[in-house]
Formats: sequence, structure tokens, C-alpha cells
Amino acid sequence: MTLLPRLPPHAEATIHQFLRAHVAAAGGQGVVIGLSGGVDSALVARLARDALGPERVLGVALPDRSHPAELLAETREYAASLGVATQAHAIDPVLDALHGLLPDETDRTTWGNATARVRMIVLYTIARSSGRLVAGTGNKSELLLGYFTKYGDGGVDLLPIGDLYKTEVWSLAEQLDLPAPIRERPPTAGLWEGQTDEEDLGMPYRAIDQILRGVEELRSTDEIVAATGLRPEQVEGIERRVVANRHKRRPPPIPKLSPRTVGIDWHD
Amino acid sequence: MTLLPRLPPHAEATIHQFLRAHVAAAGGQGVVIGLSGGVDSALVARLARDALGPERVLGVALPDRSHPAELLAETREYAASLGVATQAHAIDPVLDALHGLLPDETDRTTWGNATARVRMIVLYTIARSSGRLVAGTGNKSELLLGYFTKYGDGGVDLLPIGDLYKTEVWSLAEQLDLPAPIRERPPTAGLWEGQTDEEDLGMPYRAIDQILRGVEELRSTDEIVAATGLRPEQVEGIERRVVANRHKRRPPPIPKLSPRTVGIDWHD
Repeated sequence: MTLLPRLPPHAEATIHQFLRAHVAAAGGQGVVIGLSGGVDSALVARLARDALGPERVLGVALPDRSHPAELLAETREYAASLGVATQAHAIDPVLDALHGLLPDETDRTTWGNATARVRMIVLYTIARSSGRLVAGTGNKSELLLGYFTKYGDGGVDLLPIGDLYKTEVWSLAEQLDLPAPIRERPPTAGLWEGQTDEEDLGMPYRAIDQILRGVEELRSTDEIVAATGLRPEQVEGIERRVVANRHKRRPPPIPKLSPRTVGIDWHD
Repeated sequence: MTLLPRLPPHAEATIHQFLRAHVAAAGGQGVVIGLSGGVDSALVARLARDALGPERVLGVALPDRSHPAELLAETREYAASLGVATQAHAIDPVLDALHGLLPDETDRTTWGNATARVRMIVLYTIARSSGRLVAGTGNKSELLLGYFTKYGDGGVDLLPIGDLYKTEVWSLAEQLDLPAPIRERPPTAGLWEGQTDEEDLGMPYRAIDQILRGVEELRSTDEIVAATGLRPEQVEGIERRVVANRHKRRPPPIPKLSPRTVGIDWHD
């Protein structure tokens, strides 16, 4: 038995409709997508191109100095193969200026988060000038694990693949025939050189996604252990991560002082 | 008759409890607050100091070159009067580097938003190194109008005064005896030189807050017009703004493809 999620047959069509509806509601100019070289952003670019037409998709690569030149070239080539225009902007000058401001903050993760947030600023600046929305590339595994930067790569207008686990992203990318080098590249958040998700998270996504789907189905830790053959500590570690990162999936909390409060019971 | 909201008597105590609970849950290190010189951030600093003790509050001033030196001095003096430590970092080098990256983006609002987002990055960088939360200074009027920068001043961990309208913020600031120059300064988002909220919004907050409270109480446009004596176009303009800015009060939308979807029916 496996808990591994299976890609719903209607996923592609539903995501197309979602993109068309949101872009139309925002005035129809299209979307900006940050292209990292990974499979998530490549898949979002492909889905957006198919749903909206290539002229309503703009790919933006935001390399820092650790980003390999060949990877950038491959990314732009892939976008060109979709008929999608790209821009590339090296973000090091902004990061260097931030370093100059806060020289004492040296932690690697802190700077990784700042890098993701600088990318968010550049994407929004470009998006605003062309009336476009920022389409995020976060998937369901990342959202549940909190494996993203709050207000960095998490700071977007839409999450077209936000209900697909990483293993489902791979399935859809294969169905759509995305280039093998993109599909087979080890996933990385790109927050520092040599980072890989599966090393950070201590487990392959094939295992993580089974645990997450078990949590989604409200299964007990024991059931998930029995179904997957993983160790209880592995399962509990992922379960704890999901709960600890709730705050990244919600608007900021507000103390209730009135009949209807934003983020609680203000519904519109 | 007036629709003007009245500050609930328990507001101060509820906000204190809210701050204590969230800080304790996050490990107890306290909060970082961006201090602009305005009444919102001054009030949040005061409430946090009273709730958490001065040593668990850090005030951070992030002036750009249009920020008057006397205002910065006044801000630091006020924080010192609370016993709260402050840091100040001029953010121009970061903004200049962003300008260098995107020289063709010239719109004033675009750069105002980028400025607010750079402040967010600096606040999170400082917060992380000390294990603190970022306390936002947004009030209910701003949240409902969408009068803030998404992932800029809107990018925070907590909104302690997020359920107080601007006019209620003024009442609480007066009750707590905040310095008159801070309370009486015309509100500004500080996105460009000379900006004032009430000019941007086309109406004083005394009028805006009555309309917003009318919307909160699900009153019709006609009722709000009758109760306030404002013109129908004024009321409708604010009502439209509230709806148009829904997206700033919610997590990014995701197309539903599974039993439980983040931001829709994933509850934890």
C-alpha cells in the first residue's frame, strides 16, 4: 500500500481555467513568473503559456552570483521554446547593499530569506509596470512543510500549482513532456550554493508526500507508519513541521475587537 | 447620528493579552517594530512595551533620504522615553541598487511599494537574528481600504491594532497620553515626499471610518449616506475600494485539486 498522491486527471484543465479567470479579473494583461531553472517554475510557465497564450506570460530570471551561467542559458532557451519572453536581472547589487546595511547578520538562512524577498520585490516591480499578476511556483509539499520564505517566494498573487504535491508536479511535467534536464534536476530552494531540498528536509519527496497525504486524510501517525514503512520519528518530524508552519499559510493574526475582524470573520 | 466607531473599553487589555500569547508561543524573545514617526507605530510600540516589558521590544527606524532628520530624532527620543532600544538604518543604498537594476520603472507608486518592501526585508533580517516576531502597525482602516503595500508594510507576523479603525487609534493614543506632536501629525504612508493619506484617499478618516463601519454593519449605501451626510459617490468610492482590495487580506488563491487545499479547507 502507498499513500502517494496521484495526479487528478482534470488537474491541467482546472489550472488553465484558474489562470484565465484570475488574469481576466485583473484586467487581462497576464502573469510574471520567476524562473529558477527548476521544474516548478518551468511547469507554471508551461501551464500559463497554454492557458493564456505566450504573449501574456513574462519569465523573469533573477540569478545571484552563485547561479551557474549554463543554467540561466538553459532556462531562457526553455522559455523561448514556449514562445515566452524573458528578462534576466542579476540581484547581487541589491544583496550587497543589504549586507552593507546589516553587516552583523551572518546566518546563511537569514540571507537566503533576504535573497528570496529581493526576488519578490523585483517581480512585483516588473509586474506592476505591465499590469500583470505575479504567479507563484510553490507546490503543496512546500506550502505544508513551510519550506518557502514568508513574503519571499511565498509573496505572490496566485499559486497555480499550490494544490499539487511535488511528486504530482513531476507527473504533470512528465505528461507535458518538459525537458528531462529540468525534470531530473535535484530540487533546490536556491537559498545558498549546493542546497538541495531533500537534504534539508532529511527525506525524499516520495516519502514526504506520503506523510503529507496521510496528514491530509487525517490518518494517525501509526497508520502512516504502517502504510509507508517509514520510521515513527520521520513521520512525527514532518507532522510537527506542518503544524509549526501554520503561520506561513495564513494572514497575520489580529486580536478581535469589533463585530467583524479582518482575517477572522470579515468575509467579502 | 454618526457611524463613527467607538474604541471598546477592553481594547488595551485585549491587545496586551494578544501580544503576550503570540510572543510566548514564538519562544518569548519579543517583537521588532518599524518606527515611522507616525501614531500607529508609536501606539504599537507603547502597547508592546506595556505588555512585554521594554527589553522585549526593539524599535527600528528605516529612513530614506526624504525622511527629515528631526523626525528621526523625535522618534528615537519617544522610544527612549518608553525604555525601548532602537536601531536606525538608512535604506537608500538598497533602493539605489534596485533602481540600478530596473532603471526603466519610473512610476512613483511602484517605487513607494519597493521602499515598503525593502523595509520589510530589513525588519525580518533583524527579527530573525534575535528570534523576535515582526509586529505590524497596520490599522483596520488601512486593511479594509487596501491602503498598504502587499508584502511590504503588510508583510508582518502580527497586527496588534489591526481591528482598530484609524479614529480609534487616535482615541487610544490620546488615552495613553502619547506625545501630541506624534498624535497630531497628518497620517502618511511615507511612500513619497509630501504624501498624506487623507489627500490620497480624498476624504478625512473621520468620514472614511464611518463608511467602513457602515460596511462592517452590512448597511446599504443609502443608509450610510443618510447617517453620515456624505455624498453617494464618496460612499460608493470607498465601498468599491474595500472590494477591489480583498486580495490583500487573504492568502494567494489556489485552484482546488484535492480533498483539503491550503487557503480553502486545510484547517490546522
